[in-house]
Amino acid sequence: MHDKIYLDHGSGGMIAHQFTEQVLMPLFKNPMLAPLNDGAVFELAGARLAVSTDSFVVDPVFFPGGDIGDLAVNGTVNDVAMCGAIPHYLSMGLILEEGFPMDDLKRILKSVRKALDQAGVQLITGDTKVVPKGAADKIYINTTGIGLIPAGVTVGGEKARPGDKIILSGTIADHSIAVLTQRQELGFNCSVTSDTAPLNAMVQSILKITSDVHVLRDPTRGGVGTALNEIARQSGCGMVIMEDSLPIAKEVAGICELLGFDPLYLANEGKLLCIVPAGFADDVLAAMCQDPYGAQACIIGDVVRDHPGRVVMQTRIGGKRIVDMLVGEQLPRIC
Amino acid sequence: MHDKIYLDHGSGGMIAHQFTEQVLMPLFKNPMLAPLNDGAVFELAGARLAVSTDSFVVDPVFFPGGDIGDLAVNGTVNDVAMCGAIPHYLSMGLILEEGFPMDDLKRILKSVRKALDQAGVQLITGDTKVVPKGAADKIYINTTGIGLIPAGVTVGGEKARPGDKIILSGTIADHSIAVLTQRQELGFNCSVTSDTAPLNAMVQSILKITSDVHVLRDPTRGGVGTALNEIARQSGCGMVIMEDSLPIAKEVAGICELLGFDPLYLANEGKLLCIVPAGFADDVLAAMCQDPYGAQACIIGDVVRDHPGRVVMQTRIGGKRIVDMLVGEQLPRIC
Repeated sequence: MHDKIYLDHGSGGMIAHQFTEQVLMPLFKNPMLAPLNDGAVFELAGARLAVSTDSFVVDPVFFPGGDIGDLAVNGTVNDVAMCGAIPHYLSMGLILEEGFPMDDLKRILKSVRKALDQAGVQLITGDTKVVPKGAADKIYINTTGIGLIPAGVTVGGEKARPGDKIILSGTIADHSIAVLTQRQELGFNCSVTSDTAPLNAMVQSILKITSDVHVLRDPTRGGVGTALNEIARQSGCGMVIMEDSLPIAKEVAGICELLGFDPLYLANEGKLLCIVPAGFADDVLAAMCQDPYGAQACIIGDVVRDHPGRVVMQTRIGGKRIVDMLVGEQLPRIC
Repeated sequence: MHDKIYLDHGSGGMIAHQFTEQVLMPLFKNPMLAPLNDGAVFELAGARLAVSTDSFVVDPVFFPGGDIGDLAVNGTVNDVAMCGAIPHYLSMGLILEEGFPMDDLKRILKSVRKALDQAGVQLITGDTKVVPKGAADKIYINTTGIGLIPAGVTVGGEKARPGDKIILSGTIADHSIAVLTQRQELGFNCSVTSDTAPLNAMVQSILKITSDVHVLRDPTRGGVGTALNEIARQSGCGMVIMEDSLPIAKEVAGICELLGFDPLYLANEGKLLCIVPAGFADDVLAAMCQDPYGAQACIIGDVVRDHPGRVVMQTRIGGKRIVDMLVGEQLPRIC
């Protein structure tokens, strides 16, 4: 146990998981929190609801393809959708640094509004706090989303079964690389844009093919590598993915190679993993490809009986390597 | 319109209201957000739900009578309860500064847990972000709460009517003064403690007397003065309060006098204003006095036809003064 908070405690990696398991869960464990999915599922007045919360601290606040405003909407919309729910309502809590330019704030709020419209959700309540200069970095946004789960839908990491197919909705690592290239210390000149996008319509298209979807997960902090490890642990199944079938933009792959980043662990903000029984895989894949954010969807692997709880990658050159959970974080403040 | 964000934008005062009306509402106005109560009320699957969100940035994080942990739970539990709802579930988003001592975090999380138990609500989902040293001040906590509104209950600032009685549940300004005396720059040695407390049980006791409660409001940022002004504007009624009947602890009154603060505008974190038809006032008051947090409840004034939208105070010496909305904030980072 560490005696103080490190950046790694906020990552999607092992230290963050240990923090959750050793500090948070002993205090707060209950049947709704225990599954540790992206959101909580509960019944209220006979309806099954999904709720998810996220604070966004991305640096810089404006980046190619988006800003902290649409990121904060899409991030929570997607977490609610990954519960199999239709997101309806969002709350927004702003923490602003004294001196933050009003024009920047208005630009961010306009992009919040645009993202709300695109996802078809409504902002219903909010809160604004201002802290003195130096007590925050420009703007932090918390969003909490509420959605309704259609009858018959039950998704969750624990539901993956051997024989299931693993489908990924598109290229990996775009968001992380888009944000990274904007950091002041790097002088990158490239055309990579964040993939920030609402995925709730895609989830509805998938659920129209079959309500027997086992897992939905958006591989944000920690990337596809961490998300698959979480699902492997939750389900007690093994996972095999094929390196060759992982979609990645050429420029993104190049920058990762240059900087020594593994794209498998970099954040995506408009991608989802969908795990379904093999018999539905082709139809689900076809439905995903029809979605504006799923054109490059493909099957990247299988859920297997072997190596329970572990993720293995068949490499391009024919070998196998274990895709482990990262200990810490490659890039802090990515969302 | 200011060209950048000032501390006053996060106050409960006039500049914060202008920011809401000029920047936020034109972008986000909808029937649920429009009433600008402490929480939003909406229907989902036939149930009437209340949702409220708040980010807590109090400085210092530990203060006499509480800490940022129980404050964050009670604050949102109370905002949900002020919609007439029974709070059931809470989400929690942590923003931690790199280097924050783990022992302090554990102490805060324990007090979150204790406050959850006391209020009878469950934490169902959460999020942890860590920002580099200097990009936040120790710890910020967002909580979002969800509750169920019993059939027949409809409270809201717009429902105050001439003839109604205004009841306050206890002494004012305790929280602000308790936090203020801990600020490093002041060397106060006093026994004032924060009033942070869950008020959901008191609300249920009130609603047992009558479901015809017009307004419930917890006078946090901006204090009783601002809360009454908000209700006067929402309802288009006037308000008259008697200075003599405003409960205030002697020590708190003394410190306010010394420092030039008006306790009417200082934050409370365990008090509520209840506005009911005069015929129910005595019974509601009696019920409030039975609650552990309402022993000093009293009727402080009346809703009137005169001076619509304005709050007037009958002073101790027999005069009258207008209780206006403050322009800014007397004390930043009070919650």
